Amino acid sequence: MIINQSDISAMEQRYRATFINSLAGIKQVVLVGTRSVDGQSNLAIFNSLIHIGANPALYGILFRPDTVRRDTLLNILETGQYTLNYVHAANFEKAHQTSAKYDNNISEFSAIGFTEQLSEPFTAPFIKEAVVKIGMKFEEKNDLKINGTMLVIGSIQHIEINENIVGKDGFVALANENILACGGLDAYYSVNFLGRLSYAKPEKWPEKLDS
Amino acid sequence: MIINQSDISAMEQRYRATFINSLAGIKQVVLVGTRSVDGQSNLAIFNSLIHIGANPALYGILFRPDTVRRDTLLNILETGQYTLNYVHAANFEKAHQTSAKYDNNISEFSAIGFTEQLSEPFTAPFIKEAVVKIGMKFEEKNDLKINGTMLVIGSIQHIEINENIVGKDGFVALANENILACGGLDAYYSVNFLGRLSYAKPEKWPEKLDS
Repeated sequence: MIINQSDISAMEQRYRATFINSLAGIKQVVLVGTRSVDGQSNLAIFNSLIHIGANPALYGILFRPDTVRRDTLLNILETGQYTLNYVHAANFEKAHQTSAKYDNNISEFSAIGFTEQLSEPFTAPFIKEAVVKIGMKFEEKNDLKINGTMLVIGSIQHIEINENIVGKDGFVALANENILACGGLDAYYSVNFLGRLSYAKPEKWPEKLDS
Repeated sequence: MIINQSDISAMEQRYRATFINSLAGIKQVVLVGTRSVDGQSNLAIFNSLIHIGANPALYGILFRPDTVRRDTLLNILETGQYTLNYVHAANFEKAHQTSAKYDNNISEFSAIGFTEQLSEPFTAPFIKEAVVKIGMKFEEKNDLKINGTMLVIGSIQHIEINENIVGKDGFVALANENILACGGLDAYYSVNFLGRLSYAKPEKWPEKLDS
């Protein structure tokens, strides 16, 4: 079927949000850990992780002005620290539950059943059960003029990962740890590794790499 | 294992690019179709699609200043149009091959074996074989101060999709079309649908939705 811009404008609000979010495709599930200046730990789910650069190593996440995640943003801006955690596909219900609006004095860690892990010099909490744990330092907030969303960019300071999934050339085989992915606001996926392909050149077809 | 910022800085350049890119997790494969002002069609692979907003419906893609994709960016800025195409997992080698540096007078469509599809009033080409086809209008380019990357935001003007994968509440079941996902610069994945979960509330555990 064909859907044009006026069809989108005419959609019921919740239908449109579900449609446009899920149409954006498959995403990495990222659980962002922060701690308030008062010491309260916080955990929130994001699907908007974006690779900004490798040297320096920079990742971005998007904050919409209308979400409930403002405690996460406030903690990042006030403390300059946050953690990115990827979990096993088996944890998809726990991951989703971090989107519930718990009271400010309740930690999503204890409410949901993830274990807080501290790794100095970070005060922001990691998820002990996570497959990939990344400690971030806040670098830059870009306000997007078009609709008030904010792209928050941080630099990678610290990574904890099973060395068995890091290949000789640096490739991280996330499927070997049955990583959790998502689509839209409430759909979850696991992934099947199809293969890695050789650097593409016009004169030849890509070949599968060994790892 | 633990990797800190100085370890990352000390990595060999290609190892670091592979590591930091693949560590960023699972992404949607997006083939971006454009046409130059001279009429030359172009197709390039991106893994940085980001949902910016639902009303108006806005998606972003990231351009790094050092990539070979500048013909795509130039075409978007000069014509104001581009298309986003998602393909079946079976097409992963074709999708990867769009990253080869073909001469400027060669269309990736014919070189690789995708069929150009025109849908008026768009002059930018769609991939006929694509599962999801989205026609975009350029809206805004945000230059990120930190490293010169550019977040290009467009509004959704036109969508072509099999109505069988759009649910009653607007959810797009991409796994039903065996959609292609990726990780890093050369790894490809298919996805398994785990389920959709009910809106998360503190007092109850999420339940699986029907669709």
